[in-house]
Amino acid sequence: MRPSGRAPDQMRVITIEPGFTKHAEGSCLISFGETRVLCTASIEDRVPPWMRGKGKGWVTGEYGMLPRATHTRGNREAARGKQSGRTQEIQRLIGRSLRAVTDLDALGERQITVDCDVIQADGGTRTASISGGWVALKLAINALVASGKLENDPMTQKIAAISCGIYNGEPVLDLDYAEDSNAGADANFVLTGDGNIAEAQCTAEGETYDEEALLRMLRLARIGCTEIFAAQDAVIS
Amino acid sequence: MRPSGRAPDQMRVITIEPGFTKHAEGSCLISFGETRVLCTASIEDRVPPWMRGKGKGWVTGEYGMLPRATHTRGNREAARGKQSGRTQEIQRLIGRSLRAVTDLDALGERQITVDCDVIQADGGTRTASISGGWVALKLAINALVASGKLENDPMTQKIAAISCGIYNGEPVLDLDYAEDSNAGADANFVLTGDGNIAEAQCTAEGETYDEEALLRMLRLARIGCTEIFAAQDAVIS
Amino acid sequence: MRPSGRAPDQMRVITIEPGFTKHAEGSCLISFGETRVLCTASIEDRVPPWMRGKGKGWVTGEYGMLPRATHTRGNREAARGKQSGRTQEIQRLIGRSLRAVTDLDALGERQITVDCDVIQADGGTRTASISGGWVALKLAINALVASGKLENDPMTQKIAAISCGIYNGEPVLDLDYAEDSNAGADANFVLTGDGNIAEAQCTAEGETYDEEALLRMLRLARIGCTEIFAAQDAVIS
Amino acid sequence: MRPSGRAPDQMRVITIEPGFTKHAEGSCLISFGETRVLCTASIEDRVPPWMRGKGKGWVTGEYGMLPRATHTRGNREAARGKQSGRTQEIQRLIGRSLRAVTDLDALGERQITVDCDVIQADGGTRTASISGGWVALKLAINALVASGKLENDPMTQKIAAISCGIYNGEPVLDLDYAEDSNAGADANFVLTGDGNIAEAQCTAEGETYDEEALLRMLRLARIGCTEIFAAQDAVIS
Amino acid sequence: MRPSGRAPDQMRVITIEPGFTKHAEGSCLISFGETRVLCTASIEDRVPPWMRGKGKGWVTGEYGMLPRATHTRGNREAARGKQSGRTQEIQRLIGRSLRAVTDLDALGERQITVDCDVIQADGGTRTASISGGWVALKLAINALVASGKLENDPMTQKIAAISCGIYNGEPVLDLDYAEDSNAGADANFVLTGDGNIAEAQCTAEGETYDEEALLRMLRLARIGCTEIFAAQDAVIS
Amino acid sequence: MRPSGRAPDQMRVITIEPGFTKHAEGSCLISFGETRVLCTASIEDRVPPWMRGKGKGWVTGEYGMLPRATHTRGNREAARGKQSGRTQEIQRLIGRSLRAVTDLDALGERQITVDCDVIQADGGTRTASISGGWVALKLAINALVASGKLENDPMTQKIAAISCGIYNGEPVLDLDYAEDSNAGADANFVLTGDGNIAEAQCTAEGETYDEEALLRMLRLARIGCTEIFAAQDAVIS
Repeated sequence: MRPSGRAPDQMRVITIEPGFTKHAEGSCLISFGETRVLCTASIEDRVPPWMRGKGKGWVTGEYGMLPRATHTRGNREAARGKQSGRTQEIQRLIGRSLRAVTDLDALGERQITVDCDVIQADGGTRTASISGGWVALKLAINALVASGKLENDPMTQKIAAISCGIYNGEPVLDLDYAEDSNAGADANFVLTGDGNIAEAQCTAEGETYDEEALLRMLRLARIGCTEIFAAQDAVIS
Repeated sequence: MRPSGRAPDQMRVITIEPGFTKHAEGSCLISFGETRVLCTASIEDRVPPWMRGKGKGWVTGEYGMLPRATHTRGNREAARGKQSGRTQEIQRLIGRSLRAVTDLDALGERQITVDCDVIQADGGTRTASISGGWVALKLAINALVASGKLENDPMTQKIAAISCGIYNGEPVLDLDYAEDSNAGADANFVLTGDGNIAEAQCTAEGETYDEEALLRMLRLARIGCTEIFAAQDAVIS
Repeated sequence: MRPSGRAPDQMRVITIEPGFTKHAEGSCLISFGETRVLCTASIEDRVPPWMRGKGKGWVTGEYGMLPRATHTRGNREAARGKQSGRTQEIQRLIGRSLRAVTDLDALGERQITVDCDVIQADGGTRTASISGGWVALKLAINALVASGKLENDPMTQKIAAISCGIYNGEPVLDLDYAEDSNAGADANFVLTGDGNIAEAQCTAEGETYDEEALLRMLRLARIGCTEIFAAQDAVIS
Repeated sequence: MRPSGRAPDQMRVITIEPGFTKHAEGSCLISFGETRVLCTASIEDRVPPWMRGKGKGWVTGEYGMLPRATHTRGNREAARGKQSGRTQEIQRLIGRSLRAVTDLDALGERQITVDCDVIQADGGTRTASISGGWVALKLAINALVASGKLENDPMTQKIAAISCGIYNGEPVLDLDYAEDSNAGADANFVLTGDGNIAEAQCTAEGETYDEEALLRMLRLARIGCTEIFAAQDAVIS
Repeated sequence: MRPSGRAPDQMRVITIEPGFTKHAEGSCLISFGETRVLCTASIEDRVPPWMRGKGKGWVTGEYGMLPRATHTRGNREAARGKQSGRTQEIQRLIGRSLRAVTDLDALGERQITVDCDVIQADGGTRTASISGGWVALKLAINALVASGKLENDPMTQKIAAISCGIYNGEPVLDLDYAEDSNAGADANFVLTGDGNIAEAQCTAEGETYDEEALLRMLRLARIGCTEIFAAQDAVIS
Repeated sequence: MRPSGRAPDQMRVITIEPGFTKHAEGSCLISFGETRVLCTASIEDRVPPWMRGKGKGWVTGEYGMLPRATHTRGNREAARGKQSGRTQEIQRLIGRSLRAVTDLDALGERQITVDCDVIQADGGTRTASISGGWVALKLAINALVASGKLENDPMTQKIAAISCGIYNGEPVLDLDYAEDSNAGADANFVLTGDGNIAEAQCTAEGETYDEEALLRMLRLARIGCTEIFAAQDAVIS
């Protein structure tokens, strides 16, 4: 039995509130149950120095956690003077995932930065970030297209991400914090709208796992992403 | 005429949403018009090293701005590796203001950190932070008292803060971003429930000002704080 | 009674030694009693990147305290790897104050950096810095004018700063360290030669204060700045 | 056809030179073809502060790349003042992988730091680090057991890691730099001696991939790890 | 001919003003011609963590240069966030030199930090720092002895330092900035009162030098240090 | 008697393995007994900003120590976020020494960075770095000449470095760690092929020394460098 009382393949309630902030070119507040992440997409008409003059664009992600998003207060990274390894790992994953479904040539020489800031954490903040980050990015790009600044939509696919894990020996979908902190393995899958995989990461926690478990978690992830795609569609169209 | 169309002594709409996040001992989302700040109060049962063993408590403030809280995206302070002078100035002001109405001896040897994170900025983020920070702090302290961990309420007063400025030669109350960026002077007042002053700061921007202007702004601040106290009361009691 | 034995409206002896160092375009050693600050003004023929090409100049301040300027040795900020919030707050105040009396358009595309380094501290280092910083700046500008590099003097006013406080319930002028560390409120006023205010900051320390106290401190500040203006005049002309 | 001329399931030559440095409690120089990593294991009789007094040990990994290990010189991380996100991601992976096969309770209250420093890079530095890191760790632990400081071997399994990728649409094993920089997906598998998985990471590069490709890469990884285990066995026993 | 017009073995005028600041346990302002360095010695009743409980003391040096001590303004190290390699090299030299003439056992478990801050630079700041640093240190130690906190003087010798160089092929003593920036070799000697050497450093600048040149510079250094010892004696006794 | 059993003027075995890594334009692994340093020379076709457009080249050195190169593991400088004073002092010495024998005008507008990374430390790492760094630099320059990118060899001399010390009152050559940590003085000499001196540094450790001792160490250094020059010649020609 899961602490949350959910069935193994049952997601938490997903909500996406588009346009949560007024300044960003695209934004949403995404919730996976009690996990809430504010995602904003900011367009700049210049790319990083190493990309200049190639006529290509760039999409990058940044991630942060408010100090008291968690059970006990964490130190503010700005005050400590550096981002943790975990933060950097997550923001690299966000950027990579969003670039996997963006045609950077079609984007033109501009950069879109997707900021994912965790307002409240209850497990799955990185997958909520990617799933909500895509919504913010798509809203920003839609505005570029609507304004005539872009002729063609450079977004090639939808993309969503979800965590899975092995809890009490059983693969389960969308772990909350109580489940995550006791899981035997911790997986994150980033899937595209056409069913392909952009990223699969599965880490043993306490006990290693076998190929069967990996595949069962991947199948759970497909179930989860189908629900997320539906929530994204409801907001975008 | 103010860009906002407000009368010189007219505040923006103030809203305070208590309990905005679930982990913090006290929290609220405070809005002064389009400015929105998430304030959380976190209690720890230990004080900074230089205060240990004195039986006294400590209240401190931290301040941050989400990268796209503003019109154009700002660099993430955690990524740049340090907090700006502006950030440090503001968080020192928040902590000082809240300590001005807290009896640190009565608090006992514990620290309360009030985090003020700007979700959306439209002028007046530091005064919204102090006003909302007090609500978060008071909620956390009320919980300490309710649970019996504290016998007496160490909070000696209400406290609120508001900005004023000179716009087109006229003192006005509660400047939004459009007004603030064109004001001839920029003032912040932190007032206590009994009408006293905890902090007065008034900076010339472009043109210096006279004593009369300072006094007229202080009187506007009293009007503003009266409204904020009412909003705080509605939430706390 | 003040620990210093001074009357409430009595300043410490002010001395200003112009040309204290030979390399700077302008410099002085200013003393408010035992507080001694070395102020230098350095001219560069280029402005910060965000100001280039606008034909305007920039004046900025930097502040430092020698490690043993104080009663007990403080850590060297260069060794700790960052400037404290206090340091940043003070140097922002110095720059703002000096810009309040400089016509940046008339200055032309050059930057003047005013460094204020505290050789010995006994209260009031930030106000001594502003008062002496103005002398260094004015000397540097006079040299620019004398050499024909500037046609018109961009300095629009004299400026001076002084601290006040409430000691034993009584407003007093120009606090030394012993008084400052026991004051009930701590105020700094930056006044211009024509009697206007460039900056007013008044912080409650331990007890909040009322409007009457604020005004009485402002009047003391006027007395103090009159003396500082006289000392500046004696050096400049 | 692979640039290296190897068959899709063909590893590069693996060599492990144990005892490469004299000070470390365990060490080896591991080569996967032209990739060479120096791995050292250092034992300390104390654990990080957050683990003290629990009677448990800790195993952690650190990773570095000599500035000219690569085709073009990279900046020295010590000179830049921080470790890159990539470095932190890799060293977190090394530590996690080694802990997956270490019984931390049996290790007792000591920490073993496994440093993996890349002398020469030609693809696969992180998997060589894990595979060689295990050898260094095992040698250090064997010495602890031999000296009587440990009664039972806390190492529960062998562990090895290998990269796979999709090159020209074909899954291939053990990519060198020329292959890696043109691969359509980049996977790293960390496998234990009993055939289980400690970590699976598969990232789309340019094109997303399907479940079939993931499984084929996993099977290639099993082939590769079998060879690595044999090389480890030859050195350890 | 030297730019300064001095004879090859002629020092600049040396002045030492003891007690230049009031808070430090020992202090002086030392001048070698136009080079002026403020030296303070600060006593703390605790030693660095790695020395605790050994009953021994520690003497350390720190060095800084005010931003406009030089011809063109240098960036403030505190603002840049780190001390330059040159600064670190110099402060290590100061500490080492002073420890060479201090009996750390006799000092007891206390630390004396000698801060050397360059007010104005015209060549030879590091040697002025050592020579003046010794005066500050000796004054602080004399006060410890006078107050009865120390029974025996732990200072075993006088120590002084001076620079030499090869200018136009000729060894010369005590280079000022104009000479130093054109010298063919740059040497610093730290000598003790009994004629021994604590440190000799001689660096080729542009052209290498031979043993004869090294010896001739050492002999010049003896002449210079004799003058410095006399100036120290005049102040100390 | 020396702990190593060597005669006072006896070097450890020197070996130089050229071409130790494949990417660098020049490289070698140099050993002085158990001290092993990997030296690589990397050519870039651009010079630092402050040298651009002068048609001159630049040679610089960087130094690092692998964390477990030493008896007890040291913290990784990249993880601590800064290079120690010792590291900076050494890398400044390496660069200065190599520039002393390079005609920067003849090098043309390119920079060569010589990285010296200590694989294993047993005393004398800085002198091994300079001696091996010269080999790496020379190999890189030879390749530039061979490829026709440089017409004339900008290398004006051989250069080598060796440490000496006073052990039990006796000057000895080439100290290993056991000797170095008990030496009464610690000297490093950098000599050129024609017998001149590029750098002499001699520091008292525990006891000061006299001119005679300095000269005797310099003579030992000549013996040592003769052996190093021979080892360099064997590799280069």
